[in-house]
Amino acid sequence: MLSIGIPVVSSYTFADEIDSIVRAFDLASADADVVLATGGLGPTDDDLTRQALAEFLGVELKVQNELLEKIEKFFTDRNVQMPVKNKIQACIPAGAKALVNNRGTAPGIMAEVKGRAPTKRGPKLLFALPGVPAEMKRMFEESVLPELERFAGGQAVVVRKVKCFGAGESTIAGLLGQLMQRGRNPQINSTPKRGVITLHIIATAENRDKAEQMAAKGEKLLRGKLGELVYGTAEQSLAEVVGEKLARQKKTVAVAESCTGGCLAKLLTDIPGASRYFTHGWVTYSNDAKRSELGVPADLIEKHGAVSEQIAQAMARGARKKAGTDFAIGITGIAGPSGGTEQKPVGLVYISVDDDRGCDTRRCLFPQDRQSIRLRAAQTALNMLRLKLNI
Amino acid sequence: MLSIGIPVVSSYTFADEIDSIVRAFDLASADADVVLATGGLGPTDDDLTRQALAEFLGVELKVQNELLEKIEKFFTDRNVQMPVKNKIQACIPAGAKALVNNRGTAPGIMAEVKGRAPTKRGPKLLFALPGVPAEMKRMFEESVLPELERFAGGQAVVVRKVKCFGAGESTIAGLLGQLMQRGRNPQINSTPKRGVITLHIIATAENRDKAEQMAAKGEKLLRGKLGELVYGTAEQSLAEVVGEKLARQKKTVAVAESCTGGCLAKLLTDIPGASRYFTHGWVTYSNDAKRSELGVPADLIEKHGAVSEQIAQAMARGARKKAGTDFAIGITGIAGPSGGTEQKPVGLVYISVDDDRGCDTRRCLFPQDRQSIRLRAAQTALNMLRLKLNI
Repeated sequence: MLSIGIPVVSSYTFADEIDSIVRAFDLASADADVVLATGGLGPTDDDLTRQALAEFLGVELKVQNELLEKIEKFFTDRNVQMPVKNKIQACIPAGAKALVNNRGTAPGIMAEVKGRAPTKRGPKLLFALPGVPAEMKRMFEESVLPELERFAGGQAVVVRKVKCFGAGESTIAGLLGQLMQRGRNPQINSTPKRGVITLHIIATAENRDKAEQMAAKGEKLLRGKLGELVYGTAEQSLAEVVGEKLARQKKTVAVAESCTGGCLAKLLTDIPGASRYFTHGWVTYSNDAKRSELGVPADLIEKHGAVSEQIAQAMARGARKKAGTDFAIGITGIAGPSGGTEQKPVGLVYISVDDDRGCDTRRCLFPQDRQSIRLRAAQTALNMLRLKLNI
Repeated sequence: MLSIGIPVVSSYTFADEIDSIVRAFDLASADADVVLATGGLGPTDDDLTRQALAEFLGVELKVQNELLEKIEKFFTDRNVQMPVKNKIQACIPAGAKALVNNRGTAPGIMAEVKGRAPTKRGPKLLFALPGVPAEMKRMFEESVLPELERFAGGQAVVVRKVKCFGAGESTIAGLLGQLMQRGRNPQINSTPKRGVITLHIIATAENRDKAEQMAAKGEKLLRGKLGELVYGTAEQSLAEVVGEKLARQKKTVAVAESCTGGCLAKLLTDIPGASRYFTHGWVTYSNDAKRSELGVPADLIEKHGAVSEQIAQAMARGARKKAGTDFAIGITGIAGPSGGTEQKPVGLVYISVDDDRGCDTRRCLFPQDRQSIRLRAAQTALNMLRLKLNI
């Protein structure tokens, strides 16, 4: 909302009762020029937003035949007779406008608040959207955002997401420099989550085409500055991007995990179709398992300790040999909370990626708790494999 | 809140501005007998709840010397001089009461709203709590809940949680019968999450001891009806309970996973100290891996298909033999979204648990999506192992 120049002033949560909802519309529209309500548009007795909105506007609910036909069709398409209760979903307060729902039966509603102090942009606007998140989000993007853009002065806003891994938020901000300055257009914001930095490129222009062009240009500039730190766009995960690269290059991978205990195999197999490139995984949690399953020499463990560069390498090499894959990853470390020493603290993890060009190993020291350390280690391993697949 | 007989009527989110916060207190206390505010008690310029509360109450903020000494001690204990800005945290609206913060510097505030229509229980109550979740929750439990219990009529409320796995919510409700009837004391509510059913036993009595006794009696009755469906209490996970049993009985386990792709090994190794009982895991995603790593005969796969009772058993037996553990688990199935057939649909999973008494296998058909199917399969495997450890 902020991105189209409409700040959020307040939010309310109310009980499913007509009086409460009417009062919420009353309070909200006293404060704000635009009010968005979600939920309460279903067909059951506790769905009261429609009725409350009509009462607040001082008008009647009216059946719209076009809506009724559409809802009936939704059911006949599924060989079901429309339950009588669903008829209410075809009712809209007189004078209001129905908003298309492409994912369910409940249409949204847009109404102008007449008889109240209008804003300099025209009468205040009320929107009622379904509560089901998928329906609500789609309706917001398709029907509400264009109306708000018009309300905010006919501006179009385009948001692109770019995903990065391998550097922290401040390093990325440093590389982007002036591009992230406040007040620029496109504006660039960053949000970190579990080592992944998501950059939002928000372009505002007088029309959608122009905004698209500006966002595309912004993305190009950004990619130029960040290079291989960028791994994907929109909602892509590292595992998804690595999986696509492996499948496209017809390469395979095996993993040998100690401290991550299956996290890396899980991330890889979260992706549908992972069997195209993932064949074997070992969770060699004990030293004995590292020896018997991956052929890691017992004296090597004795000499360097199970958490060492040498063992990560031996695990990766052993896994690649046994699985016969193009790549193999070995991970060994201390996930804690106990088991750390001064030389080898909690969070220390060695990660090796082996292929026929050799074995690359990274020594990492991850902060925080057991779950974060394990996840960060598995993600870092995926990122090392991604960079190898880029060459 | 509902559990002590105080229903929630509404919630508000407001901007960090004095006027907005004053108005929020105004609106909320018009609606409700008790108002809880969180956040805005820190030492920085955008922390304004304290000031807004004083303005709303029509009184001055006053430094409380006892609080000031405590805050100064918090810093001197850490060998740091108290920043000047923190002095504001020792200020409380005149006539209000400070609430102890055992986890940070910001005391909470409790005030009575005088000069407004009092409730039949006395004047309306306002609470301001810190926004940091750990500080807020502890203060709520230690300082606010007893006040609310008094406000609600001097009643004490004790809540116990019991966790179940192996049956759905409606089956459990059927087994509990009258125990779950509305209006009973203790009251029992259930919430499902990823196959785990959590039962809340809420006992209300005139004092805490009595409520504790009633909750304990309720738990005993409930356990009598549910038997082995109950696996733990409070926040315990299945993996934690299984891990404790394995450690206590000095038993070990290995896992061989296909469709779960490491989820089961991950759940087991999420628990600190898992190396006491977990040694080996295999993710045999390809048929070749099942053959070479676990000794599953190729002609058995040919005959029954990789997703079959026979292969789950062969995986479990092969894993136990290779790892030399007391137990081994084999999982094979179709996590989807593609790969299903009429005979073997998406969601079909075979799970075997092998020990020296034999190999038990379950055929499961899990609903929903890839992630749910994988997690439910891994949890079901843990539950089968739990039941074996009970014998």
